[in-house]
Amino acid sequence: MSAAKPYRTELTPLSFLERSAEVFRSKPAVVYGERSYTYPEMRARVRRLASALRRFGIAKGDRVAILCPNTPPMLEAHYGVPLAGAILVAINTRLAAADVAYILNHSGARVLLVDAELTALVKAARAQVAGVERFVNIIDPHAVGPSDSMRLEGPDYEEFLAEGTDEPLPMLVEDEYETISINYTSGTTGRPKGVMYHHRGAYLNAIGECMTSGITSTSVYLWTLPMFHCNGWCCTWGVTAVGGTHMCLRKVDPALIWRLIREQGVTHLNGAPTVLIGLANDPAARAAPLDRPLRITTAAAPPSPSIIAQMEELGAQITHVYGLTETYGPHTVCEWQTHWDALGPAERARIKARQGVGYVIADPVRVVDDEMSDVPADGLTMGEVCMRGNNVMKGYFEDPEATATAFRGGWFHSGDLGVMHPDGYIELRDRAKDIIISGGENISTIEVEGCIYQHPDVLEVAVVAIPHERWGEVPKAFVVPRAGTNLTELEIIDFCRERMAHFKCPKAVEFGDLPKTSTGKVQKFVLRNKEWAGQSKQIN
Amino acid sequence: MSAAKPYRTELTPLSFLERSAEVFRSKPAVVYGERSYTYPEMRARVRRLASALRRFGIAKGDRVAILCPNTPPMLEAHYGVPLAGAILVAINTRLAAADVAYILNHSGARVLLVDAELTALVKAARAQVAGVERFVNIIDPHAVGPSDSMRLEGPDYEEFLAEGTDEPLPMLVEDEYETISINYTSGTTGRPKGVMYHHRGAYLNAIGECMTSGITSTSVYLWTLPMFHCNGWCCTWGVTAVGGTHMCLRKVDPALIWRLIREQGVTHLNGAPTVLIGLANDPAARAAPLDRPLRITTAAAPPSPSIIAQMEELGAQITHVYGLTETYGPHTVCEWQTHWDALGPAERARIKARQGVGYVIADPVRVVDDEMSDVPADGLTMGEVCMRGNNVMKGYFEDPEATATAFRGGWFHSGDLGVMHPDGYIELRDRAKDIIISGGENISTIEVEGCIYQHPDVLEVAVVAIPHERWGEVPKAFVVPRAGTNLTELEIIDFCRERMAHFKCPKAVEFGDLPKTSTGKVQKFVLRNKEWAGQSKQIN
Repeated sequence: MSAAKPYRTELTPLSFLERSAEVFRSKPAVVYGERSYTYPEMRARVRRLASALRRFGIAKGDRVAILCPNTPPMLEAHYGVPLAGAILVAINTRLAAADVAYILNHSGARVLLVDAELTALVKAARAQVAGVERFVNIIDPHAVGPSDSMRLEGPDYEEFLAEGTDEPLPMLVEDEYETISINYTSGTTGRPKGVMYHHRGAYLNAIGECMTSGITSTSVYLWTLPMFHCNGWCCTWGVTAVGGTHMCLRKVDPALIWRLIREQGVTHLNGAPTVLIGLANDPAARAAPLDRPLRITTAAAPPSPSIIAQMEELGAQITHVYGLTETYGPHTVCEWQTHWDALGPAERARIKARQGVGYVIADPVRVVDDEMSDVPADGLTMGEVCMRGNNVMKGYFEDPEATATAFRGGWFHSGDLGVMHPDGYIELRDRAKDIIISGGENISTIEVEGCIYQHPDVLEVAVVAIPHERWGEVPKAFVVPRAGTNLTELEIIDFCRERMAHFKCPKAVEFGDLPKTSTGKVQKFVLRNKEWAGQSKQIN
Repeated sequence: MSAAKPYRTELTPLSFLERSAEVFRSKPAVVYGERSYTYPEMRARVRRLASALRRFGIAKGDRVAILCPNTPPMLEAHYGVPLAGAILVAINTRLAAADVAYILNHSGARVLLVDAELTALVKAARAQVAGVERFVNIIDPHAVGPSDSMRLEGPDYEEFLAEGTDEPLPMLVEDEYETISINYTSGTTGRPKGVMYHHRGAYLNAIGECMTSGITSTSVYLWTLPMFHCNGWCCTWGVTAVGGTHMCLRKVDPALIWRLIREQGVTHLNGAPTVLIGLANDPAARAAPLDRPLRITTAAAPPSPSIIAQMEELGAQITHVYGLTETYGPHTVCEWQTHWDALGPAERARIKARQGVGYVIADPVRVVDDEMSDVPADGLTMGEVCMRGNNVMKGYFEDPEATATAFRGGWFHSGDLGVMHPDGYIELRDRAKDIIISGGENISTIEVEGCIYQHPDVLEVAVVAIPHERWGEVPKAFVVPRAGTNLTELEIIDFCRERMAHFKCPKAVEFGDLPKTSTGKVQKFVLRNKEWAGQSKQIN
């Protein structure tokens, strides 16, 4: 179609690599330990991967999966697989073998690229993934002792690349609404669902990330956020669009991260608040002041006031964004207003905890009641957060029923409950399934957590519903205390009763670690399941 | 179509104002002298304009013209007209009455919004513009003495707005390829042609401008570039997209510009090098150092080394871009490479004079021979610069023949001759019609001008072909000397002969002012016509 209309070019992130390889010929595109690739070298490797895949027989629309930490092959797959005409399935590396097998089968992946440290996940369910025709073993010298026994039958990644050519390959994108990737949800409720992204949405959201986080050609972006998570919030494509440098990172290691920030000029990183907590509390944090501004974009949970204050004191600027796998990662940003600069730290943190407004490239976000009417913008009335537009998924792969449910009323239903503030900023109150209903009153677990976070001795907290004879449900807090402190249950409860309506205060407090997903989200269902064992209520 | 697909939203710059009015509720969107509108106020005025137009009977696809300096109504028309479903025709305010009449008739404009100082242009050809059904008079208190005699029949602009309502209006954009504006070329060869922009291209190029010039929500953008020129290079829409502040400016007045930069926090301005020359040579330039970085994006001619050096010394950072009306304004940028920072000033200026590479949102630019083959990337072989993609016009309004010619071979032909450097950056050598053919050799007038610009006493220069008995054509230089200097013809010629092949050196030099278009481009055809009067060659 584009041949007929010289004013039409399909939007695809593949064009970003093509441009940066032409424009930034000597600049490091990818840095990983001692290794470094310029943009032309990155493109050459991507072309080799794409042509090797085509040579193997991968055809347009086929699925190619990858199971790999944030190393160069993971980044290369984000271009090489679509350049081959195929659809990328980047699998969460922290799933159980059964889930990995389910995703490989459900997506119908014909090829799997797998890091040697993760082959066990595949071997454990080897018999169940007979549909995978080719395994490609990624051998990373930085990994802890990968040995031959850890390989699957099939070539090493570098051998596989050598089967390809770095000659230019035509892009096969005929329509920007074609699927570029399928990202499986973590599936705490039922089976993982395959979220389909199109080229147009990936292109626009990649640019949206750069605009929101201020990523430019002089930026050095450190890969603390897993690339398997919404394709790294589309930054796999966005950093390339502006010709910045991707700094790969196999594992989130705070001391290493601080070293890279100080010695390698890292300017940007993204991650859940748990990554920030790890950074702020590492001894390396205060080793020396930063000589370049560091911008951190965080999501998954509102950053607590104390973590914002700590990170800002260390020289980092925090941006709070919110989204879901179904929205290509972040969809809203707590867009900062200049006049808020004058507020005190507590007030600024309270505002920054809001999820905010739709990205420039997104449609406005709504908070609606059960009849799809907007709730009043009073900061009090709770409703469900809904989205639509160019950065909302095409649907769930081969699951028209789940797609129809998610899009009922023509809008994507996030499953998140929130309020609309009078100034048009949304603020989440809870996941629909996390909300506590106590004596008929709704209690937002996020609100209770926000209160407990104000206690100086609290490092992390999660609140869930537990059964109660009289009220049906009541809140219980699971607290990670700061090292060297001596918190007690009573102290937490009293602290809350001084600050909140009593029915919202936790009736029990437990101290210890919190179970988390690979992306740093607390797994409240794990906490809840334990509390509700043998009871009738079971919601996930 | 979008109702059926919740993952599809038409791209349109109208969404930018809608978002910024929701997000930046108290921030100045538009500042003009003592007047200032917040984003919600700007949106309210835009809605009034749109609903007044609809009420008047403007229907989808109708044309609405405006003849107005860079004042708030001109900016409002960029949203109000498309929000009414109509197509904006922003007319060059420095055209002759006959050209204005031609454009009004050719575009079929049903309504004309006209600044009181410019009504004379319409009155002079009143009988010829019978198709215009409604005139709206823009009365600007900042203008020099507009009187009742200067009005055309019809309401004042503010009265017209009062006929509308600031209730939300549905956007009528059903397809992002619908036309949002028609911008008429200056038409030095034949009649002006109407370049059609679509919503998608305007949206993408607006974002491209922000990415290229680093415009963000804290930017204050000063309107030195006429908004009638490519819709202000799409910055009419881009500055709004990021929620920056538009600072309107009725007239390019260097002393006022310096005052606004110093007192109103201007961070960005765009303009031809002639604007920069005016700024650098104004006594106010050195009044005080700038306390915020100033970014200037320049096009229309390569900025001379001396002007780059002068402006950088004054605290401004210069970005050089290139494009045409047919490419929504800038299409390429001399994308700066970090390793060039180490070069000396002369070398940096030489590099910065190149037109560079396609924008992130653009397709790559080509330099081709007559058979549409790429010329070698040797920095020497000349060819024609060609473009295509999302920021290339849909075509010329009601001129399929000119459209077909411009798009022969499936690419837009710029009419500019240039070379492709080995690093993929293009550099213009000449307009196809400006090139000098002397004894069978091509001489780039830009190259000769670049040489003469190195002379410290030269403020501006233009080189054109003059007739010569033996060689057919030879170069002649028209020079504006720096004030207080005593340049001679012989001095210029000798200066060139020391630096260039002798056949390229001017055979004659004349001193005086240069004729210019409204956008600051030297009108070489005026110089040439004078020299060729009575001769056979006539190329403009």
